[in-house]
Amino acid sequence: MTQGKDWPVVGMVGGGQLARMTQPAAINLGIGFTVLAASAVDSAAKVVRSPMVADEKALDDLRRFAAACDVVTFDHEQVPPELLHALAESGVTLRPSPHALLYAQDKGAMRAKLTEIGVPCPPHRIVDSPDDVAAFAAEHGGWPVVLKTTRGGYDGKGVWLVESPAEAAEPFKAGVPVLAEERVDFTRELAAVVARSPHGQAVAYPIVESVQRDGMCIEVVAPAPGLPTDRATEAQRIALTTAASLDVVGILAVEMFETTDGRLLVNELAMRPHNSGHWTIDGAVTSQFENHLRAVLDLPLGSPAARAEYAVMVNVLGGDLPDVYPAYRHVMARDPWLKVHWYGKQFRPGRKLGHVTVYGSDLDELRARAWHAADYLKGDIDE
Amino acid sequence: MTQGKDWPVVGMVGGGQLARMTQPAAINLGIGFTVLAASAVDSAAKVVRSPMVADEKALDDLRRFAAACDVVTFDHEQVPPELLHALAESGVTLRPSPHALLYAQDKGAMRAKLTEIGVPCPPHRIVDSPDDVAAFAAEHGGWPVVLKTTRGGYDGKGVWLVESPAEAAEPFKAGVPVLAEERVDFTRELAAVVARSPHGQAVAYPIVESVQRDGMCIEVVAPAPGLPTDRATEAQRIALTTAASLDVVGILAVEMFETTDGRLLVNELAMRPHNSGHWTIDGAVTSQFENHLRAVLDLPLGSPAARAEYAVMVNVLGGDLPDVYPAYRHVMARDPWLKVHWYGKQFRPGRKLGHVTVYGSDLDELRARAWHAADYLKGDIDE
Repeated sequence: MTQGKDWPVVGMVGGGQLARMTQPAAINLGIGFTVLAASAVDSAAKVVRSPMVADEKALDDLRRFAAACDVVTFDHEQVPPELLHALAESGVTLRPSPHALLYAQDKGAMRAKLTEIGVPCPPHRIVDSPDDVAAFAAEHGGWPVVLKTTRGGYDGKGVWLVESPAEAAEPFKAGVPVLAEERVDFTRELAAVVARSPHGQAVAYPIVESVQRDGMCIEVVAPAPGLPTDRATEAQRIALTTAASLDVVGILAVEMFETTDGRLLVNELAMRPHNSGHWTIDGAVTSQFENHLRAVLDLPLGSPAARAEYAVMVNVLGGDLPDVYPAYRHVMARDPWLKVHWYGKQFRPGRKLGHVTVYGSDLDELRARAWHAADYLKGDIDE
Repeated sequence: MTQGKDWPVVGMVGGGQLARMTQPAAINLGIGFTVLAASAVDSAAKVVRSPMVADEKALDDLRRFAAACDVVTFDHEQVPPELLHALAESGVTLRPSPHALLYAQDKGAMRAKLTEIGVPCPPHRIVDSPDDVAAFAAEHGGWPVVLKTTRGGYDGKGVWLVESPAEAAEPFKAGVPVLAEERVDFTRELAAVVARSPHGQAVAYPIVESVQRDGMCIEVVAPAPGLPTDRATEAQRIALTTAASLDVVGILAVEMFETTDGRLLVNELAMRPHNSGHWTIDGAVTSQFENHLRAVLDLPLGSPAARAEYAVMVNVLGGDLPDVYPAYRHVMARDPWLKVHWYGKQFRPGRKLGHVTVYGSDLDELRARAWHAADYLKGDIDE
C-alpha cells in the first residue's frame, strides 16, 4: 500500500535528450515519469519504465498518452497547436498551456506579444515576398537581413541570413509566414532561464553566456563572464516578465543578444528545459529539469543558485570516431572532476550526442578542460 | 546506427532504493542499466526500461537476467553464494565476485579474513550454544555480549545484545553459525566508503559519522565532525586495504566504531552503494552510485571530493501520515535548498521511504533543517 493516494505522473511528449535528462530528476523526487517517443530507441525511451511509442502528431495517440498522466508537458515545440487545443478542451492538463506554448511555436506571434508587453526585440516585421524583404532592408539599416520561418525551426534550421532579394526566395518556399529581422550588432548571446509554477511562483537562474556554431548551442558559461550586475538583473527581469505575461508554466529559456551598445534584445523563446540550462545539473542547487517537474506539478520551486563560481558546459557533437567508447574512457581518466553526460542517441555527424560540464573558479582552466573533453569525444583531437 | 559497438549494460540484482538511485547515474553516463526485481512495483523496477521481475534466488532466473547484461552487480548481499559461484563458472561477469562478496554475506568469514589481514575488529569468536556465550563473556569483559547470525542479517535484523545465557538462546534458532562479539565502548560510529575497479584503481570518500537507531542508519554527517586528520586517514586506509585484500570491485562501505580510547574497530562491511554514501549524490563531485557503475565497468573512477564543508543526510521513515504528499510539498516550500529523495516504495511503518540532504557550512543549522524535514515527512511534527 502506498502512503496516501498515488503520486502524480508527469508525461513528456518527445523522446529526446531533454526528456531523458528529466528522468533522473523524477527518480530523485519520487514522481512518476513517462514519455511519448517516436521510437523505442529514442534517447529518453531507453530510460523510462514504459515509454509510449506512438505518433506525437496524431490526436488519438496523444489522447492515449495523456490518459496515463496527471500532467502533460513537452521536450520540444513541435506538437501542432490545434492538437494541443483539442487535448486541453477534453480536460487534459497541459503545462505549459497551448496559449502559452504558441509563443514558442510561432515567431510571428512571439514578436507581436513581446512587443506588446514592452520586451525589447530586434526590429522586425512579417514579410510576404523577396521584394518586401528588400523594402524591409531599406527601412531597417540595409542588408543583410535575417529571415525566419515563423514555424517549424530549431537549432538553426528555418533561419537565413540573406544579402539580396534573390537570396531571400528560399524561406518563402516553406509555405508559412516569414519574419524579417534586422541583423543586430551584438557582442555575444546570453540566455535567461526561469521556472514558473501555475500559482505564479518563479525563480531565475544566473544569466549565462551561450556560444552558437552553425545555429546550434555549443558552449555555455555560467554566469556570463563580466556581465554587469544591473544588466544581469535586467535580463532576469525580462525573462520573469515574459514568463508571467505569457502565463508560462515550467521552464522558460529566453535567448538574448547583448548589443555592442549595451542593450539586451530577445532573440528566441523556449518553453522547456533548454541547452543553456544543462550546466544546472551539476552546477546549481536545483537543476532546470527538477524545477521543470516541480513547476508543472505546482510544487514549490527549488533554489536556482549556482554551486560554484563558474560552470562551463560544452556540447559533444557526432564526429569521425569509429568507436567513441575508448575516448569516453580516456576523458574520464584524464579529468576525474569532469561530468560526462551521454544521451544514448543514434549516431549522426554533427548531432548533439552528449555534453560535458566542469565547475570551479578558474574560468580559463575550466574552458580548456571542457573543450578538451568535447573535442576528444568528437575525435577532433587525439591527445 | 550507434557510434561503435553498443555500450555496456549493467544489471543490478535487487529492486530496492539502491538500485533505483543507480539509474540516474547510469542515465547521465549513457550506460545501459536494468534490474532483477521481485516485483514490478519495487522501487527500482518502476524507473528502468525493462526490469526483469523474477526470483533472485532461482538460478535459471539469474541466468536469464545475466544473459541480457555485460556485468552483473548487486543492491544487497542476499543471493546465495552457491548460485553466485554457478553463475561465475558459466562465464557471467559478477562484480564484486562471489569470492569477495562472501565477506559481506558471512560475518564469520568476514571477521576471520579481516583479522588475517590485520584490520582491527572487536574481540569475537563463533559460539555454539548459550553456555558457550557465557564462556565468551567470561573471556571478554562480561555481559552484555553482542550476538550475530553470521548470515542473513541487515538493518539491525540478526543482531542481539544479550545479558545472560537465557537471553542468548534466540540467535541459535536461525540454524546458522552465531558470532559473539564484545560490546565495544564507542563514542560514535563512522563509515568509510571507497570504490575500487578491477584493475585496482581506488578512491576514498571523506569519512562520515553515521547515527543508528534500532539498528538502522538514520543520519549521516560528512565529514565526521571533529575527526582528527590522522584518524580519518587511518579509517580510509583500513577501507582501501580491505577493498584490495578482499579484491572488492565496486563500492565497499566499512562501518566502524570509534572507541572511547580513540581506536577504530570494524563493525560491518557492505559491497554495494550504502546508506552512509547517500550524501554523495548532492554532496560529492561523483556520487557513490556513479562510481559503483564506473568501477564495475572498469571505467576510470571519478573524484570523491566533497563539494561543501558539510553535508547532512537524514533518512525518512514510514510514519503515521495518512497522505505524505502535502508534507512533501510543505518541506519543499519551507527550504528551497533541501534535496528530497523519495524512493517510490510501498509504505510500511518504520521502513526507509526516502532521505533528505542539505549541505553548507553551519553544521548545527544543517542538522536542524534536515531533521525538521525528515520529522515532518514522517508526521512526527506538523509545524
